[in-house]
Amino acid sequence: MINQLIANIRKTNAPIVVGLDPLMKFVPEFIKKAAFAEYGETLEGAAEALWQFNKGIVDAVSDLIPAVKPQIAMYEQYGIPGLAVFKKTVDYCKEKGLVVVGDVKRGDIGSTSEAYAVGHLGKVQVGSSSFYGFDEDFVTVNPYLGSDGVKPFIKVCAEEKKGIFVLVKTSNPSSGEFQDRLIDGKPLYEHVGEQVAAWGAECMPESGDYSYVGAVVGATYPEQGRIMRKVMPKAFILVPGYGAQGGKGSDLVHFFNEDGLGAIVNSSRGIIAAYQQEQYARYGEENYADASRAAVIAMREDIAAALGRV
Amino acid sequence: MINQLIANIRKTNAPIVVGLDPLMKFVPEFIKKAAFAEYGETLEGAAEALWQFNKGIVDAVSDLIPAVKPQIAMYEQYGIPGLAVFKKTVDYCKEKGLVVVGDVKRGDIGSTSEAYAVGHLGKVQVGSSSFYGFDEDFVTVNPYLGSDGVKPFIKVCAEEKKGIFVLVKTSNPSSGEFQDRLIDGKPLYEHVGEQVAAWGAECMPESGDYSYVGAVVGATYPEQGRIMRKVMPKAFILVPGYGAQGGKGSDLVHFFNEDGLGAIVNSSRGIIAAYQQEQYARYGEENYADASRAAVIAMREDIAAALGRV
Repeated sequence: MINQLIANIRKTNAPIVVGLDPLMKFVPEFIKKAAFAEYGETLEGAAEALWQFNKGIVDAVSDLIPAVKPQIAMYEQYGIPGLAVFKKTVDYCKEKGLVVVGDVKRGDIGSTSEAYAVGHLGKVQVGSSSFYGFDEDFVTVNPYLGSDGVKPFIKVCAEEKKGIFVLVKTSNPSSGEFQDRLIDGKPLYEHVGEQVAAWGAECMPESGDYSYVGAVVGATYPEQGRIMRKVMPKAFILVPGYGAQGGKGSDLVHFFNEDGLGAIVNSSRGIIAAYQQEQYARYGEENYADASRAAVIAMREDIAAALGRV
Repeated sequence: MINQLIANIRKTNAPIVVGLDPLMKFVPEFIKKAAFAEYGETLEGAAEALWQFNKGIVDAVSDLIPAVKPQIAMYEQYGIPGLAVFKKTVDYCKEKGLVVVGDVKRGDIGSTSEAYAVGHLGKVQVGSSSFYGFDEDFVTVNPYLGSDGVKPFIKVCAEEKKGIFVLVKTSNPSSGEFQDRLIDGKPLYEHVGEQVAAWGAECMPESGDYSYVGAVVGATYPEQGRIMRKVMPKAFILVPGYGAQGGKGSDLVHFFNEDGLGAIVNSSRGIIAAYQQEQYARYGEENYADASRAAVIAMREDIAAALGRV
């Protein structure tokens, strides 16, 4: 699936992943109104609104991008109906040929991590049959519990030819609280990155330069990105924090390898709530998906300029 | 809810939480057979088997214990039908008067952590109404992303009078890989524990000695438990790793305060799969819930002996 991701990036010429993290305040009134008219102001109504919102955006941008990253928390907060729409979104995006990164940040130990891995990337056995629970292509994984927590994911990745992105240096302001603390002269995130490189060496596809084990390093920390790019040469880096969180195109160059690959940049509200920004306000609420399309094109050009490809 | 947990512990005289982490291999054949007869060998069939298994155990032990800890991964692996049974289990246990700790190990940043907090502990707004998504009493939280990830949970805890247990030192063999690394002469988990104490000081109930912010410290690391007990005097400690993972009753004394409170010890497969152990094999598969009841009583006595209460 890492090779599928790379093929999609080459085809679209856009190392971009659109974060499908719908907050209800991003959803246009006309969508909410229709959903609540059908299902009432209920969890089902809210979930339907998220689904229609997502579908509009995916239909408008799927030819421009290689991948999407639905953030499960935004669905999970609406309970079972919300999670059903998470799954519907994953399935729909895959039908459209998009690679799907489930931003689930799961991580536990032993058989518990195995259950998460099976549920999100693999097949669960039921009697003599087996089923995909959620069936994303990649998921994000939290490393705090060490190898016991990550290796069950790696096992499923090898079986299914899918992948993970391990949290190394996150994009948020307080990420330094623990991640930047020095251990033997190096920050914790660098130790985690070294483990990512070691885990990844055991989990390479049959052909290709990149491992099934990738990493998350925030666009808001470009200098750290430069270092981590070298520490984990075979890890694809998922880069959050571009746009709304303050990461600029010019910050991104350090995250890429000389082959022009090795990173994929996420933008969530910068794309999905583009119509709420002054720059795209002219589209109006009804044409929110067109505003998202314009924002994807602008992001693609910003990144291409930063990488010296225009 | 921390005071409810303490009241339940006093009432049962058992600082025990039963981990409802059902692996399919723990579920007796007669339950699986009935569930598959009704729903087929499907995700729905698997979920029904987990539900009937859980219900049997909860009915057999609910008068003996203060709390349960369903591990969401074991349900999530069966997709939406599995998660529906997670919710059904949470609701049923609450009806029985048990405190429910959702072992979800979530953690993200900003609005995303807020969504998890709202979904598992709080109410989500839908138009002019609001709804509980999963409605546990406590959840476990991963601290790797720092205060940005934890504070949204604390905000919801204060509003709902619910609680969290932050992962400090986990019970698994590789927990030391990152958690034990020395930072300024102290292991990472101790720095996390200091933050737990600081976060907890901001989030105390109106009366009582313990904060809404607790911690997870594994029974397999009793020496670390002794230190962390002092670092976080007002944090209730959730102690996994007793029983199957190797933690013994005699290891537990360090996790408690002088008031005899301050810790609650988890056992999962040691209780729910007791009938599969030699010691309880005489109960037979049909009476698996009675075996679980006997195992709870034995655990209660083991802990009481270790704490010098017999």
